[in-house]
Amino acid sequence: MKEKGETYVSSTQISRQINIDASQIAKDLSYVNITGRTRVGYEIDRLIQVLEDFLGFTELHRAYLFGVGNLGGALLSDAGLAHFGLQIVGAFDVDPRLVGTAIHGIPIYHSDDFERRMQADGVSIGVLTVPINFAQQVTDKMVAGGIRAIWNFTPFRIRVPEHIVVQNTSLYAQLAVMFNRLNETEKNNLSV
Amino acid sequence: MKEKGETYVSSTQISRQINIDASQIAKDLSYVNITGRTRVGYEIDRLIQVLEDFLGFTELHRAYLFGVGNLGGALLSDAGLAHFGLQIVGAFDVDPRLVGTAIHGIPIYHSDDFERRMQADGVSIGVLTVPINFAQQVTDKMVAGGIRAIWNFTPFRIRVPEHIVVQNTSLYAQLAVMFNRLNETEKNNLSV
Repeated sequence: MKEKGETYVSSTQISRQINIDASQIAKDLSYVNITGRTRVGYEIDRLIQVLEDFLGFTELHRAYLFGVGNLGGALLSDAGLAHFGLQIVGAFDVDPRLVGTAIHGIPIYHSDDFERRMQADGVSIGVLTVPINFAQQVTDKMVAGGIRAIWNFTPFRIRVPEHIVVQNTSLYAQLAVMFNRLNETEKNNLSV
Repeated sequence: MKEKGETYVSSTQISRQINIDASQIAKDLSYVNITGRTRVGYEIDRLIQVLEDFLGFTELHRAYLFGVGNLGGALLSDAGLAHFGLQIVGAFDVDPRLVGTAIHGIPIYHSDDFERRMQADGVSIGVLTVPINFAQQVTDKMVAGGIRAIWNFTPFRIRVPEHIVVQNTSLYAQLAVMFNRLNETEKNNLSV
């Protein structure tokens, strides 16, 4: 709407676009520092600013990635993450063919160098893309080194101290759920 | 455990490894076709087979990817998806610099060729990685062409007919949640 030159947007308009109740939208927006004008709505520029701030997209969060396999390498290549506030400044692996190289300009270090680099780089987030059987071990190392939030792409339920934030995003678990729902739907369609 | 030469595993052992109640594990496993032996547990080979079948990982599901941007390109490069049953056999985009090329051996076609290719390729799953403002339009096209399940990586809540399966995986939404929880944790730690 901003690109189309609009200045104001109402919760009803947002509601129609994203398919969520207008009352829910008004309620959600009451959590951020913006007030709408009756019959006009919210100022679009201000709304974007306030939401991007709230979501943490305007601040760059420095991160390390652990495990440069298929998925890890793919995430290093995804420039989109930086647009949403995640700046991966280094990656760690033990594979001698990878250590010393870079992907998309992001240097790959040996896992043994993590604690030393951590002192210099001031990183708070760790992206976990190691094989499942190393997930806990690498998590423990991250936490000991001072990582405060872990984006866990493994299907393993990692254990962390209470003050550490864990965000679980298992692509393969999501795939399994999708396959199952697809199978169920096909079965139901056949039996009709 | 299989790699270590073990033949049986008990729900208690699984429980300890993945940090979930043993009773919940026994309950979950009652949904698949396996029975454990008292004091011994489940036969590991059979358990793996039964679970991989149930999760849909042993069957290859053919898929198309729509939108070869940062994330789309990254997913094409992720060979791990094929190991979990998702075989991306083609991608679609409108960018003339991409159309006619291939990533990781997967050909990129022009979006206009989708319906024609669909006849030949027999694909049931669409991976949606287009920019958010094209999400609904491309979804409608997928559904019209015969796609039966959509793995939606955009933060947009796409609308589909009832018989279509949608699996939402917005990496950027998950990032936002992680940033927020990290900020909350830091605030609490400071105020202590």
